Amino acid sequence: MNILERFYQGNKIALSKLISYVENQSTDYRKLLAQIYPKSGKAYRVGLTGPPGAGKSTIVDRLTSLLVKEKRKKVGIIAVDPTSPFTGGALLGDRIRMQDLTNQEEVFIRSMATRGSYGGLATTTKEVSVVMDAFGKDFILIETVGVGQVELDVVNACDTTIVVFVPESGDSIQAMKAGLMEIADIFVVNKSDREGAKRMISELDMILDIRRKKGDWEYPIVSTEAINNKGIDLLLAKIFEHKKFLTDNGILEQHRKNQIKIDLKKIIELKVKELVDEKISNSFNVDEVTERVFRGEDDPYSAVERVLKQIRLTNSE
Amino acid sequence: MNILERFYQGNKIALSKLISYVENQSTDYRKLLAQIYPKSGKAYRVGLTGPPGAGKSTIVDRLTSLLVKEKRKKVGIIAVDPTSPFTGGALLGDRIRMQDLTNQEEVFIRSMATRGSYGGLATTTKEVSVVMDAFGKDFILIETVGVGQVELDVVNACDTTIVVFVPESGDSIQAMKAGLMEIADIFVVNKSDREGAKRMISELDMILDIRRKKGDWEYPIVSTEAINNKGIDLLLAKIFEHKKFLTDNGILEQHRKNQIKIDLKKIIELKVKELVDEKISNSFNVDEVTERVFRGEDDPYSAVERVLKQIRLTNSE
Repeated sequence: MNILERFYQGNKIALSKLISYVENQSTDYRKLLAQIYPKSGKAYRVGLTGPPGAGKSTIVDRLTSLLVKEKRKKVGIIAVDPTSPFTGGALLGDRIRMQDLTNQEEVFIRSMATRGSYGGLATTTKEVSVVMDAFGKDFILIETVGVGQVELDVVNACDTTIVVFVPESGDSIQAMKAGLMEIADIFVVNKSDREGAKRMISELDMILDIRRKKGDWEYPIVSTEAINNKGIDLLLAKIFEHKKFLTDNGILEQHRKNQIKIDLKKIIELKVKELVDEKISNSFNVDEVTERVFRGEDDPYSAVERVLKQIRLTNSE
Repeated sequence: MNILERFYQGNKIALSKLISYVENQSTDYRKLLAQIYPKSGKAYRVGLTGPPGAGKSTIVDRLTSLLVKEKRKKVGIIAVDPTSPFTGGALLGDRIRMQDLTNQEEVFIRSMATRGSYGGLATTTKEVSVVMDAFGKDFILIETVGVGQVELDVVNACDTTIVVFVPESGDSIQAMKAGLMEIADIFVVNKSDREGAKRMISELDMILDIRRKKGDWEYPIVSTEAINNKGIDLLLAKIFEHKKFLTDNGILEQHRKNQIKIDLKKIIELKVKELVDEKISNSFNVDEVTERVFRGEDDPYSAVERVLKQIRLTNSE
């Protein structure tokens, strides 16, 4: 029996292998995705982001428990950490707590601590989620560490985006709020037993009031203590409310079509890059050009124009 | 007299206009850069990065003063803030202190708080520095806020890279060190009057000892209180020492050739992207394909393959 058949029969090892195949961009991985893609589209994606140490992993952990035990859902988890090999380690540490989840049939966890392949990380994350989706997961929880553009891209591609804060002061938090406020559907103030939690909630509330419009989504703030399992049921209820809101208003369909457009764009970009790299390496002596540019006899812009003409990729064609 | 002539005569307004031209990627800006590029290559680039609030702007401020007044150098400053519109504001606030510098003939400051054009920010920063270089600046100080990949790319492209820390505890600092340790030539512990400064220095020292090799660059740690102008003279001395080290060992030449290769690669990527976008928009009905993919009748990977065949950009050609 081939790997795709086993995959469709719900074999976890086959799932794991196909994810690795996609993640490592092995030969013809796009052909594999082309086959799998039409089976996807059923899973609901929830993205979680926020500063390191906010307790995202614990929240994902607790949400997964509820989804599996009370809602009887199949859950896929993707933990994305694009920046640091060190927090990669931390993630794994966090994951130890989740071992009872990993052993469950309904849960599949994948960490992507791929510091190197930064450029395509958002795309690869999406592709891994497509594989989980086609495998039959009902919910895919995507957790990202940090608040860079990649993290924003990753969680923004999800159906529901959750931003997790912790009560803390400091400019860095202020700055982070800036980029995050715009993309979040649900706000979580975790570790809400800490000092400053109430003030943080009312601050967030004030900022959100500007955004909230009548008949629009409420942009709720959920207060949690994930480690003590407090507030997680409310958070899950809000996720389902948001799902219903998106579905009832036709926003989910629109959002997914937009995501398909973004996917198309990214696939074109990556594919073209590969093709052009190949063509250029055959007709461009980088060392020679570099020497000439270094000696001031050439400039990189004119050199690129020449090579693009040579591989017949120009406007004038 | 045209703008390029005025630029070559040292007209600051012409410099400012050409920078805007490049930054906004106005029509044929690459032709402009192609003309200017051969005049560049003389400036020495110093990159500074580190967490927000570390005092980078103050250090840049003080370094510039020394460079101008004691070393009689012409200085260009580029302040890059890719992530947040808010810290963009903070930067401007910081810059108010520098007004006496901006009014000096020898100093030119440019802030780039370009949240939108994320993808090409490292490239645009490089291009702006090429314009300043061709204008006749001896030193270009490039300051970035934050520690994402773009910031690493920006400062890594500099001849000397400085990472600024402040005495503080916390996992976030630990995590940041991780990515930064590898790229820095000089380490600064600013606000060194604060508690924990000595411990931080000895910690850094320990980590660096692993990296330091006999006959290699020393990777010094400089303790500063930039606000009180303490330690800045030593920092500048270390910059000059590093410059001499790179020059004497032929590393500067090698580094710059590597940078030219990176430039070539980036220019090709951006240029190809523009060309392909144009070609594709003429032969690809995105909305139609999106609908088909959404309905499960098509998949994005096969759709892209088809359009690339159509614009005759494939391997098999």
